[in-house]
Amino acid sequence: MSAEPRLLEVRKNVLKQNDVVARALRGRFRAQGTFVVSLVSSPGAGKTAFLEKTLTLLRQDYRVAALVGDLATENDAIRLARSHAPVKQITTGTLCHLEAAMVEHALSDWDVGQLDFLFIENVGNLVCPSSYDLGENLRIVLLSVTEGEDKPLKYPTIFNSADMAMITKMDLAEAVEFDEASVRANIQAVRPGMRCFAVSTKTSMGLKQYLQFLKDRLTEFTQAETALRE
Amino acid sequence: MSAEPRLLEVRKNVLKQNDVVARALRGRFRAQGTFVVSLVSSPGAGKTAFLEKTLTLLRQDYRVAALVGDLATENDAIRLARSHAPVKQITTGTLCHLEAAMVEHALSDWDVGQLDFLFIENVGNLVCPSSYDLGENLRIVLLSVTEGEDKPLKYPTIFNSADMAMITKMDLAEAVEFDEASVRANIQAVRPGMRCFAVSTKTSMGLKQYLQFLKDRLTEFTQAETALRE
Repeated sequence: MSAEPRLLEVRKNVLKQNDVVARALRGRFRAQGTFVVSLVSSPGAGKTAFLEKTLTLLRQDYRVAALVGDLATENDAIRLARSHAPVKQITTGTLCHLEAAMVEHALSDWDVGQLDFLFIENVGNLVCPSSYDLGENLRIVLLSVTEGEDKPLKYPTIFNSADMAMITKMDLAEAVEFDEASVRANIQAVRPGMRCFAVSTKTSMGLKQYLQFLKDRLTEFTQAETALRE
Repeated sequence: MSAEPRLLEVRKNVLKQNDVVARALRGRFRAQGTFVVSLVSSPGAGKTAFLEKTLTLLRQDYRVAALVGDLATENDAIRLARSHAPVKQITTGTLCHLEAAMVEHALSDWDVGQLDFLFIENVGNLVCPSSYDLGENLRIVLLSVTEGEDKPLKYPTIFNSADMAMITKMDLAEAVEFDEASVRANIQAVRPGMRCFAVSTKTSMGLKQYLQFLKDRLTEFTQAETALRE
């Protein structure tokens, strides 16, 4: 298609500009001591339920908030508000991903004070969000047991852009004859050494280890920042 | 973001050019008497299993073939080949959707004779494929019972661009406490009057009615073409 090279060129500029905004956000989060975690997955992998549980459990000891992206509806923000953490919805219209400028804009008129953790739930999409840095410190890609073990091989870019994988809906593993060894092998084939947790929001399986992992990352993050200042 | 209006303009041109190719494809399919069905859904909704079953059952009485799109791997083409129907994989690299030119290119060097049905399985994505006409006669959007009842409201564009909805993995409905009335109401809210089937590839539930629907559409399609020629 003749229009493609021009589209690619413009796309490169958009990505470059996104990187500039993301870098500024990351600097701001670092200065504020806020550890930022983003969640990406296909629609229906259980991001919102997982995030609601995360917010509920963390807010007992930490200052937490969440931004949530969707094409349409405020449904996810309403669901997440049940955690009693501050939550804000970003609606993207027809856009298939969040961009750093949307995060920046959402934060600009939102006074949530000094946060320990900010979570950003991306639009449900296993392709497009991979190209857009949101200034996060940790990107988690979620994959539910019902989606099929081959997904890391079929969507390698997003698994490559993530720092951690989360296998969700483990309570359904038996019903769908889920092969955990196979999905773990496929994740390692695409991104060798990537940390991977298997969890169930329903039964709480695996959540304790995952939350401890987050808390350890926050400690490392704030210690590194303090060391830099000294 | 300042680059956005330029991106939108280029994107409009790409879409316009896609429509030209799609229109030409549709004319060719009509002249050949080939009824073209495309499948869109999020990753892991069961498109490939559903298509394998469809090909296996239809090829007893009809000439059928399939094109299947993925970012990477030939996995789906290998799976679909078990149906013994001709199958060809299109790998899109990092592109989040199929375009009409890819379909045209895939068909250009592929001699499958005169087909009754050609199926096109799109990349797993509930956002991007909605904007790209592939010259198909019928676009089916699949939604599995594990994804959550609110998906039509959260991804309205793709439900609007489809002609029919297919609720898949009905064998798991009880395990996930699926609310069929709610998802049907949400589909109707987004696209009033849209035909919707509930199926299970595993138990074959609903497949007979769906296949009869396809056969009826083919009959109508070829009769309309014959009438035009007389």
